[in-house]
Amino acid sequence: MPDWFNPDPMGREGKVLMRLAMVMLQGSPRLARVDAEGRHCWPLAALAPHLPADMAGLIAAMAGGAIVPEPEGEGVPVAESMLLAPLPNPPRNIFCVGKNYHAHAREFAGSGYDSSSTGAADAIPQAPIIFSKPFTAISGPSDDIPLHPGIDAAVDYEAELAVIIGRGGRDITRADALSHVFGYTVVNDVTARDLQGTHKQWLLAKGIDGFCPMGPWIVTADEIGDRPMRVTCSVNGEARQDASTADLIFDVPELIATISRSMALLPGDVIATGTPEGVGIGFKPPRFLRDGDVVECAIEGIGRIRNRLRKTGG
Amino acid sequence: MPDWFNPDPMGREGKVLMRLAMVMLQGSPRLARVDAEGRHCWPLAALAPHLPADMAGLIAAMAGGAIVPEPEGEGVPVAESMLLAPLPNPPRNIFCVGKNYHAHAREFAGSGYDSSSTGAADAIPQAPIIFSKPFTAISGPSDDIPLHPGIDAAVDYEAELAVIIGRGGRDITRADALSHVFGYTVVNDVTARDLQGTHKQWLLAKGIDGFCPMGPWIVTADEIGDRPMRVTCSVNGEARQDASTADLIFDVPELIATISRSMALLPGDVIATGTPEGVGIGFKPPRFLRDGDVVECAIEGIGRIRNRLRKTGG
Repeated sequence: MPDWFNPDPMGREGKVLMRLAMVMLQGSPRLARVDAEGRHCWPLAALAPHLPADMAGLIAAMAGGAIVPEPEGEGVPVAESMLLAPLPNPPRNIFCVGKNYHAHAREFAGSGYDSSSTGAADAIPQAPIIFSKPFTAISGPSDDIPLHPGIDAAVDYEAELAVIIGRGGRDITRADALSHVFGYTVVNDVTARDLQGTHKQWLLAKGIDGFCPMGPWIVTADEIGDRPMRVTCSVNGEARQDASTADLIFDVPELIATISRSMALLPGDVIATGTPEGVGIGFKPPRFLRDGDVVECAIEGIGRIRNRLRKTGG
Repeated sequence: MPDWFNPDPMGREGKVLMRLAMVMLQGSPRLARVDAEGRHCWPLAALAPHLPADMAGLIAAMAGGAIVPEPEGEGVPVAESMLLAPLPNPPRNIFCVGKNYHAHAREFAGSGYDSSSTGAADAIPQAPIIFSKPFTAISGPSDDIPLHPGIDAAVDYEAELAVIIGRGGRDITRADALSHVFGYTVVNDVTARDLQGTHKQWLLAKGIDGFCPMGPWIVTADEIGDRPMRVTCSVNGEARQDASTADLIFDVPELIATISRSMALLPGDVIATGTPEGVGIGFKPPRFLRDGDVVECAIEGIGRIRNRLRKTGG
């Protein structure tokens, strides 16, 4: 794990930072607070039995003012394999942003797979490009990424910062936007590049079952503030992506303002903010993911997800 | 109402056809069977109290073999204003198909708003163009369509046949596809054309709150069979769209096969199959919808929805 990973694992005041996870405990998925290193957790069923038992419900309750108590005692030991996707049932498809880093916008426009531009001249979007992934694409932080027969030839990774909305609203201004953020997590916006070109609109290329690993937990917004975060991705240990969210073309407030002009945002909505330069199609020839490859996406101050590509039977 | 509207209102064997609606009765939305003319209904709470009380649940139960009994007695009188969107909470965003009639594909490609093609040469898609509308866009068959400030300048109508999935599945073949269809309804895929061009991907232009009137009910697949259906749309009584689903570029089996290659379809998924020629941007200059306009979308053998455009305060 990189050395910037947990700059202050115990928090600014010696408290355990607010990390909320879904943890498989005694055969059932449980909401829990987790320490910064992911070694111990405190199930909310014990800590706050009056709160909802699922993450979407908890987010709505906390957006309405509910408080999650500080952990007490030693906590329950956690292994990486026990962590599940922290928000498996957002209220609607995940909002995703295309071409939201300059260098990636140029690499994608030059790849031959970009149906949103005709080449270098219009490579950089003038407005956010927003598409969606259904909840059925979401998988856990260490789940395999399935290579389904027939859609396994051009599978690519995209490490992304994902924003989780707390308080909902319509026509949210840039100035108010960050007050609507509940927290952040990491997603891999896995993409079948061939379908992305063929179908023009990106839902079928991006919404494939198992194509949205998420986790390892949600870090609440107050722990992150508005500081830039470093986003990295490696494949089989080889560094591929490394950028700062400071380089987003459309930053988080702009994305929230833009989406909420079309529709009221809801507690638990997820916005995957786009991926930096270094995806597989940025190479000549492209370097697509193959059976057995391991992709690790990490974001400073949040954590990492690590997923192996695996052929499925059908 | 056109004379082809209810060719056989009492059904082929003298039974009331299976039309399932959400009806506002005594202040609450209720699942009900409705007669073909929409004049009487039979609430399922009385007819089949063991079945789920919401449409998504009922569809899943019926996909699993549950039977809705024949109506008994006179039924409860229904007024058009009591009908609600029949499926307000599908399991994920509605699947929508772009440019799926030849004449419409050409009119849209020539309109200047089509980010999916560069002109006449590639106007006709080589593969289905699939995007989505979130459930929050869904409104009732006689609800107003909101003209939100700032996104009210280029609002357009799109009458469409919507397919409701019954039994779910992955990698569904063309040959099996129709056995996965639960039923059909009418939607208006209302679109802000300016946002459709600006944002390249169509979610923000298509997913606007209130931009998916649906209804007036669901007609089960066994009542329709595989016969072509006539799709019409009028604005303020002036005919604008009139086509047959026989003219779909990608037919219902093809759409089901294509989507289910990317993701398992779920009971209650909705596929809006695309709109025929005659939308507002097909005219030179374009004829966009204005405050007070009334749009009526009708499909032979199903019914009609009729919605008034209404400015909102903000």
